[in-house]
Amino acid sequence: MAKNFPTREENYSQWYNDLVIKAGLAENSAVRGCMVIKPYGFAIWEKMQAALDKMFKETGHQNAYFPIFIPKSFFSKEASHVEGFAKECAVVTHYRLKNSPDGKGIIVDETAKLEEELIVRPTSETIIWDSYRNWIQSYRDLPILINQWANVVRWEMRTRLFLRTAEFLWQEGHTAHATEKEAIIEAEKMLDVYATFAENWLALPVLKGTKTQNERFAGALETYCIEALMQDGKSLQAGTSHFLGQNFAKAFDVKFATKEGGMEYVWATSWGVSTRLMGALVMAHSDDKGLVLPPKLAPIQVVIIPIYKNAEQLQIVTESALKIKVALENKGISVKYDDDDNQKPGWKFNEYEFKGIPVRIAIGPRDIEQGTIEVARRDTLEKFTYHQIDIDNKIEHLLLQIQDNIYTKALAFREEQTRNADNWEEFTTLLNEKAGFIYAHWDGTPETEEKIKELTKATIRCIPLNNKLEEGKCILTGNPSKQRVVFARAY
Amino acid sequence: MAKNFPTREENYSQWYNDLVIKAGLAENSAVRGCMVIKPYGFAIWEKMQAALDKMFKETGHQNAYFPIFIPKSFFSKEASHVEGFAKECAVVTHYRLKNSPDGKGIIVDETAKLEEELIVRPTSETIIWDSYRNWIQSYRDLPILINQWANVVRWEMRTRLFLRTAEFLWQEGHTAHATEKEAIIEAEKMLDVYATFAENWLALPVLKGTKTQNERFAGALETYCIEALMQDGKSLQAGTSHFLGQNFAKAFDVKFATKEGGMEYVWATSWGVSTRLMGALVMAHSDDKGLVLPPKLAPIQVVIIPIYKNAEQLQIVTESALKIKVALENKGISVKYDDDDNQKPGWKFNEYEFKGIPVRIAIGPRDIEQGTIEVARRDTLEKFTYHQIDIDNKIEHLLLQIQDNIYTKALAFREEQTRNADNWEEFTTLLNEKAGFIYAHWDGTPETEEKIKELTKATIRCIPLNNKLEEGKCILTGNPSKQRVVFARAY
Repeated sequence: MAKNFPTREENYSQWYNDLVIKAGLAENSAVRGCMVIKPYGFAIWEKMQAALDKMFKETGHQNAYFPIFIPKSFFSKEASHVEGFAKECAVVTHYRLKNSPDGKGIIVDETAKLEEELIVRPTSETIIWDSYRNWIQSYRDLPILINQWANVVRWEMRTRLFLRTAEFLWQEGHTAHATEKEAIIEAEKMLDVYATFAENWLALPVLKGTKTQNERFAGALETYCIEALMQDGKSLQAGTSHFLGQNFAKAFDVKFATKEGGMEYVWATSWGVSTRLMGALVMAHSDDKGLVLPPKLAPIQVVIIPIYKNAEQLQIVTESALKIKVALENKGISVKYDDDDNQKPGWKFNEYEFKGIPVRIAIGPRDIEQGTIEVARRDTLEKFTYHQIDIDNKIEHLLLQIQDNIYTKALAFREEQTRNADNWEEFTTLLNEKAGFIYAHWDGTPETEEKIKELTKATIRCIPLNNKLEEGKCILTGNPSKQRVVFARAY
Repeated sequence: MAKNFPTREENYSQWYNDLVIKAGLAENSAVRGCMVIKPYGFAIWEKMQAALDKMFKETGHQNAYFPIFIPKSFFSKEASHVEGFAKECAVVTHYRLKNSPDGKGIIVDETAKLEEELIVRPTSETIIWDSYRNWIQSYRDLPILINQWANVVRWEMRTRLFLRTAEFLWQEGHTAHATEKEAIIEAEKMLDVYATFAENWLALPVLKGTKTQNERFAGALETYCIEALMQDGKSLQAGTSHFLGQNFAKAFDVKFATKEGGMEYVWATSWGVSTRLMGALVMAHSDDKGLVLPPKLAPIQVVIIPIYKNAEQLQIVTESALKIKVALENKGISVKYDDDDNQKPGWKFNEYEFKGIPVRIAIGPRDIEQGTIEVARRDTLEKFTYHQIDIDNKIEHLLLQIQDNIYTKALAFREEQTRNADNWEEFTTLLNEKAGFIYAHWDGTPETEEKIKELTKATIRCIPLNNKLEEGKCILTGNPSKQRVVFARAY
């Protein structure tokens, strides 16, 4: 087995962790809970960023940057927000170090204590709305449609690479609107952007829905989310978009003069996705041979490996290979030609399979004679012989097929793993045997949801948008319910 | 005068600050020394980032991301580095807040004290070399050519928007090499990248040179820099590239097996530019009417303003204007058509002049009749009438001319403001009357440099690369000198 790591069947959690590290995506650092995102992982993240950033700009948003530090008192201004965010966080208390009197290293200079502690942002609503107060006077200043790419810190006790780290990278959109309706439309629009991105780029089918009150963002009136199913049957929240009502406007006193001449509080949304998507990408598609990357996010889409016995053969093969490389690059395909003489082709085949390169091309003297190449697909592990004629179009088409196939496979898996449960026994049996998404009736109370979570570790992942209404009885309490909601164990 | 702010002559410092704020580039935040980079400013920074990132990748570098926090003890490992960086910094001491017993707000939870304090990175050599130790075993693992885009924090006492802020955005390259020579070549190559970027994109002529020992980066054996002259005759260090020798490899015990079978410490470089470049851009080119942006960095390169008296005229003008817009956009030019009915053309002219849009096009009913448009250049404030035929090529050409002219003007200014001083009296007279760059002899000692700084506030900005050797006498001590160095007062 490649790289000596467990199969998904043997130990899914270890499989994930080993894969992330051995494929060079990320690793743990010397700082507890903080990861190093390595070049190969970062190159994938950059592709995600570029695609999302384009979508944000196409929907009218601009980027900006706000301070990493937030004065402690800001968190207390929005009552539910402080409960959700201001507790487990990195607190800056001093601004200077000095040489230790014993000559060994450096210590905190106690005379350099901040009057008010600063929090390393866990999310930026407060510092941003403190700025918006000065930016917004009249309805003419609205809407404000801003996004920020940033690092944030949440002091997590149990961390896992990409999925839950103390510091992570994300984008956070923060918008301000004149009306409730406009803000809700914005929150829903950005959910759609996330869903489109997940499906078209990550090849990840997602459920769109709203969170229950228990699972809502601290400070939101409504949290929209996309939920994706991982190969172990657990759900992963892949992005959220919040309708914040006037909560932050009230907390930071942000009013505007309306067209009609009155003064009103501004309506808000915020929305974000993070490097957690890297975890989703790995967990959704990869296999026991290593990474499987959707072509649209693969830093290298095609690798070409020469097969040769001597320098003369290498020269002939290289000439052909470079022609193919140029033809593909002219199509906008990223190609690596690996003629490193220190490794055998077999070693290279394994290596690129492990790294998830979507298409591998091998070319040797016999191919040159016959005008062919050998093509291997990473997703299905199939091999084909292609004639070199029109190779750029063929490979371009193949990459699209692979992108589609990865999505289709994930969708089929999710459909297989989505079931109804009509009573408590069915529910718990399913959870313990098959996991996946379970559609079940719930009486709509936070107490019942909490109780189900305590008993099963399953949570309501979302109430699907445009959910089918259907009379039924809550699986726990038997109380009446008007719709099924989606339960799962989750990351 | 536009926007009611002082001229450069009246108060250069206030002119700069007002311009940055009123043009919507950045503003101060609620957190001391930390700025908010507003959308218009950030859009310029994004263009800088994109251009630099491309140049880094073309020279073989990859991006990665390392933790924002650095354990305090890491700073003590490299003796000179700790002196330079670990003193004025943001220190994280706790990881939790709790509700205040008096019910008023939240306080630091004293039970959640970190065993070892964490420093918010002022620069990342230490945390990165701690990682490199695990990445490098043999010469085959070298070179490592990595760049990081990140925020950093240095607790500055006197801050100015973009020029000196507690938190700023930057990129930091960190490379590891098998030989001293290769590392020096890398440090020099990246200096060239910076100089090319400054000249081609910022339209900013720069001096390339090395720093004296006093001004070297803490931990470097050689600091290369680019220095640019601002309109008030002060110099601004616009980028630095450091040859770090084996200092960090020794501090973090990073050795590699050589081809010959030995074990050696790895050679290092680091290099960075920051949002300080935004300050340089504004201070080098802008004038008393507002920003002047080089077309290559202008978020909007061309604005089109319709002139009309009624809805019918607007409709006709709009039709023509949108055709021109599409033609320009097909050339890759970014165009805004401003048909906002709430503002008069005169107001718009002033506004876009103030914001530094390189080209303004006005089009009215008479233009439609005559097949013309009115074109105004922001850099020279000249106006022309252009025939609409071939307008895309004409405007494309004009933008290139403007980019060139801004550079040429800055270069001419620098040449005017560059003088020789042959003795102390000439030196101090020049400094007090004309400022600018002063080439003068210096005896090569840190003591003399320090003394000159004390007496005049002028520092040695650099020893130019490929400097002309010339016998002379130090302006302060009269001791022999073999070359002139460049003095100036600096930001």
